[in-house]
Amino acid sequence: MDQAERLLQRCDELARVSGLESGILRAYMTPEHLRANRIVSGWMQAAGMHSWFDQAGNIWGRYPSADAKAKTLIIGSHLDTVPNAGKYDGILGVLAGIELVDDLNKNQVQLPFHLDVVGFADEEGYRFGAALLGSHAIAGNWKPDWNQLTDRNGITLSAAFAESGFDIEAVADAALDSSNLLGYWELHIEQGPVLEDLNLPVGVVTGIAGARRFELIVTGQAGHAGTVPMDLRQDALVAAAEVIQAIETLAVENKIVATVGRISAKPGGVNVIPGEVRFSLDVRSENDQLRDRVIVMIEDQMKAVCERRGLRYQIEETHAAAAVRCDEGFMNIFSTAIKACGYDVHRLVSGAGHDAMALASVCKVAMLFMRCKKGISHHPDESVTVADTAVSLTVLKQALFALVESLSIEARS
Amino acid sequence: MDQAERLLQRCDELARVSGLESGILRAYMTPEHLRANRIVSGWMQAAGMHSWFDQAGNIWGRYPSADAKAKTLIIGSHLDTVPNAGKYDGILGVLAGIELVDDLNKNQVQLPFHLDVVGFADEEGYRFGAALLGSHAIAGNWKPDWNQLTDRNGITLSAAFAESGFDIEAVADAALDSSNLLGYWELHIEQGPVLEDLNLPVGVVTGIAGARRFELIVTGQAGHAGTVPMDLRQDALVAAAEVIQAIETLAVENKIVATVGRISAKPGGVNVIPGEVRFSLDVRSENDQLRDRVIVMIEDQMKAVCERRGLRYQIEETHAAAAVRCDEGFMNIFSTAIKACGYDVHRLVSGAGHDAMALASVCKVAMLFMRCKKGISHHPDESVTVADTAVSLTVLKQALFALVESLSIEARS
Repeated sequence: MDQAERLLQRCDELARVSGLESGILRAYMTPEHLRANRIVSGWMQAAGMHSWFDQAGNIWGRYPSADAKAKTLIIGSHLDTVPNAGKYDGILGVLAGIELVDDLNKNQVQLPFHLDVVGFADEEGYRFGAALLGSHAIAGNWKPDWNQLTDRNGITLSAAFAESGFDIEAVADAALDSSNLLGYWELHIEQGPVLEDLNLPVGVVTGIAGARRFELIVTGQAGHAGTVPMDLRQDALVAAAEVIQAIETLAVENKIVATVGRISAKPGGVNVIPGEVRFSLDVRSENDQLRDRVIVMIEDQMKAVCERRGLRYQIEETHAAAAVRCDEGFMNIFSTAIKACGYDVHRLVSGAGHDAMALASVCKVAMLFMRCKKGISHHPDESVTVADTAVSLTVLKQALFALVESLSIEARS
Repeated sequence: MDQAERLLQRCDELARVSGLESGILRAYMTPEHLRANRIVSGWMQAAGMHSWFDQAGNIWGRYPSADAKAKTLIIGSHLDTVPNAGKYDGILGVLAGIELVDDLNKNQVQLPFHLDVVGFADEEGYRFGAALLGSHAIAGNWKPDWNQLTDRNGITLSAAFAESGFDIEAVADAALDSSNLLGYWELHIEQGPVLEDLNLPVGVVTGIAGARRFELIVTGQAGHAGTVPMDLRQDALVAAAEVIQAIETLAVENKIVATVGRISAKPGGVNVIPGEVRFSLDVRSENDQLRDRVIVMIEDQMKAVCERRGLRYQIEETHAAAAVRCDEGFMNIFSTAIKACGYDVHRLVSGAGHDAMALASVCKVAMLFMRCKKGISHHPDESVTVADTAVSLTVLKQALFALVESLSIEARS
């Protein structure tokens, strides 16, 4: 069995480690989290690494350099899942790191840096509502407030740590020294349809989009659907519809993404003109300035539509995160490796968040996206191919050798 | 106290006859229905009428012609209400008929026709879900299926009749002989903002719009708000927004009313592209053909929008009623009377349903709309003025004399 096949078989095996009777769920600081860590730790050791849990519950394996004082390249992703998850989101990137090391180990390759593979413990944030906890911990950005976050059963994060045999007071010890880090690489399924649309197995991620979210409220005047003529209406829904159209147009024109996912009209009767409409807005771009400019344009449109129609409006920001840029040097290394495999290089932004966002505060980061069927993720239908997995492993291996070479050139010059 | 003041004072008095501790509710075949009927019956008798309940629970008063074989003009409206209702919707038209007769009676005016005043028992349809029960009964259109309709407590209409001392098997006896009817006149608050906007106390109703209602469903593809680029989306909500815009434009262009009152997007996450949107559509016009042509145009737009965007759609009709035309002769009589009071004549369609719709199947009908504050109805804020009420009574009286005159011209010719 080749490495790509084994990797996917291990994804199947991990899929059976779940907190649900049917379907996949591995939440932070649960028995299934610890069980998955132990299984992965076994695979790490079989690949020639020594392995440990850190104080935040992340699982690590190290393929050490002969030079004990060498810096470290981290390759990984996360092992936790949302409820009723797919088999590859996160896991794929951890297991790819292990396969890579297994290959190096079998060929007795010596690296001029330590190669650490990490399985992050809580990227999805399903249990406690705050995402990227595992990677924030190693980036030294753990917030003590988080200790009191509670899950659906009222269990605090602090108590969950204790139940799993961890001490939350020691979680700061998981933080890495950024001066020792060469960078962080993450292979992840795309979770979108772009690579499939382009018929490419992999793509180079240029950055992780920063999202801002809003609740938009249009207030008009409810009225009888039969007795109020069109020209005397202050219909909040028609105004909202105009704004939703404008949001799409502005997003397309400015090459960013903007989404209205939720909408409600009050009073909501079939025969009543809507007096109030609330809808959500999610705007993302790898370029924070561009994103913010588009948001101002959306606000201007909303103002213009509502003024023209004699309606009132409110815009409330509910979430904001800055974009993260991937390292240009790493992107070039990935690109060269993809070309060497005979594929066109497609660079794309990640609209979804990833552990690399948290790592970006302590080291250079890079991500390789792998095609997934129809772009489906967070769903049992999540699907990848052995062929694409093989390409991903080859690209990462080529990139690793290119990195070694670039470092040796750097050292000589 | 003048008649208009007394009429509004009686509206206040009836407002205290309610099935709610606070707020107005008079539902069909309830103790408060019967109590309101008895009070109104007393006012009818005081105005010189003899009065009776019919088999459907409507209350009647007759100011008889000297000619026992004369035909009958009916003036009235309904006494039932929705929950938390206003004081004038319906009631105003019944009490106006009584004031009119009181005036005739005091002046010992003899009419060449019987003048019947009716207080219909169930126009709103709140208790049993089917509207216009009282007027359908006298129009001879009672459907035996209705006997098994149940209220929120599981009480059938049949049992409710019995509890109130009525026999539902005899309800067909409430039907009037259409050959004896001159017509039906109804004064009603506008329930819309048109007369207020035009600064007119009253307006002539040209017809009652026929409504058709639909459930529209747009089906696209749900997806991650961050990972699916704008050009690869099948966003059901943006498509629906485009259709909602088109509905407004087509309604304005064709001078009818169309309303989307309800909307929902699935899955409904802030960060998920909507895969399915459902929304309601209510289209009304006094011209059924025009209304139906606009509906076809809306369907065509929906098809075009969804085809262009690669989405699927469904259109389900949930309700259909034909429009009713008011009698041209009556409209002219009303118009002349309004001019005689010194006001511009404004003709307008009723977008809401009224008892006149049911009566239209057995006789000529006419309606006079009276201005109400901000067009508000079905709400405690429903408000009218003494001055407008006085104008309405004068217009009806003038119209009545004009009808007498036109009949005598007819008889002579």
